[in-house]
Order: sequence, then structure tokens, then C-alpha cells
Amino acid sequence: MTETKFNNESGKVPDLQPLKSYYERHVFFCLNERKNGEPCCAQYQAQQAFDHCKTQVKAAGLAGPGQVRVNKAGCMDRCAAGPVLVVYPEAVWYTYLDNADIDEIVASHLKNGQVVERLLIPPTLGR
Amino acid sequence: MTETKFNNESGKVPDLQPLKSYYERHVFFCLNERKNGEPCCAQYQAQQAFDHCKTQVKAAGLAGPGQVRVNKAGCMDRCAAGPVLVVYPEAVWYTYLDNADIDEIVASHLKNGQVVERLLIPPTLGR
Repeated sequence: MTETKFNNESGKVPDLQPLKSYYERHVFFCLNERKNGEPCCAQYQAQQAFDHCKTQVKAAGLAGPGQVRVNKAGCMDRCAAGPVLVVYPEAVWYTYLDNADIDEIVASHLKNGQVVERLLIPPTLGR
Repeated sequence: MTETKFNNESGKVPDLQPLKSYYERHVFFCLNERKNGEPCCAQYQAQQAFDHCKTQVKAAGLAGPGQVRVNKAGCMDRCAAGPVLVVYPEAVWYTYLDNADIDEIVASHLKNGQVVERLLIPPTLGR
């Protein structure tokens, strides 16, 4: 992994300038389960999709610092679009139906930096 | 909230260009608890710090789309620096000791965009 380098000469961390991200892409899956009957990502096999994504990223040799981290997360409050995941630092939000969708996100976005447009969440869809 | 606008004229999502983030800042706290005796963020009152952060962000009127989301997360694999949180899309990683540290992150970074340098994690510190 390349060390973070600050891009000015003072050695100070510049506010809100892009730093080199510890992970090139950090993926968060909502795995939230609601017990009160309200819709939640866990109803849509989010755990299974998370496991599949983690396995595929590892198998592709993409896992680790300087590359990709696939992470569990709680509710990200965009339930109306669920199940959801988000890829940072790009802040690209996806929904998915099945393993084929996850495979496409891995092969296209996580490996090659190409956004999978058909799986993007409508930009204002929240809870 | 302002709708996401793509910054080219074709209407297509540009690959890896910065999109407007659904949350201006999305904060993830590792709340991972290990049962096997290995160190984990949960040992360091991560849940309490998460709760405190969420309360402070809400009290400051910063919570919601277009503003700040404080999120639970699983292990982010930087355990040697724990307890940890990360702020995206800036990809700024912090550690913290107590509520005063959380308050400073909220007031400085989440509210005013000023990185809290003293709480930054050494850039290569991982698991």
C-alpha cells in the first residue's frame, strides 16, 4: 500500500482536500433487520449478498488496504430503495436483486471503476 | 436536499467523477465485538460513542439527507488503531477516547469541515 501523502508543502493535513483513501473503494451493505414488520434490507437476502460480494472480491484478488473492503453496516436510511449498498469514496449507491447483480458491481465498478448505471438508486429516494 | 446532478451534458453518469453525495458526510463507527478475546472496538465503548455522536449530530441539526448520517458498521479491519470511525466521502479516519473527542469531531469536522488532526489514525495502521 502507498502511504498517504498530503498534497501541500507544509506537511499539514489540508482541510477537505482529497486524501489518498486507505481503501480505494469501501463498500457498505445495509444488513439491518427490523423486528416490527417494517421493510428492511435483511428481508432481501442482504446477508447472503454481502457474503457473496466478500467472497467474490477476495477471489478476484481485490481485497485489502489500497484496494477494496466489503463491510457490514446498519441502516443507512434509504430503505425505500432497499436492499442497498454504497461505495465510497465515490458515494455511489446501488440496489441489487441477486448474485448476478453483485457480480456485475464487483467486475464493473469495484474492479474497473465503471459505474453500473442500471443498478443505481434514484438520487432522492430515502426512507 | 439538492438532487444529484451529473456534471456533463450527456446525462450519462460519468465514471468516477465526483457525484453529489446523498449524505454530505457519512460517518461509520466500527462496533465490532469479538468473542475470542482479540482486541475489538466494542471493548472501547464504541457503542456509547456512536450513541453520543448520533445524539450530538441530531441536536446540532446536522442529521439527514444532504447533511450528516451517523452509521453503525462492522469491523473495518483497522483494529490496531481502534476504536475507529471513518468519515466519507473524504475518507478521513479517526480514533477517539471519550465524548470530548466525539464532540470535537462533530463541531469541527462534521459541522465545519475542519479535520481534527490530533485524532487522525496513522495512515498505514491496519489490523
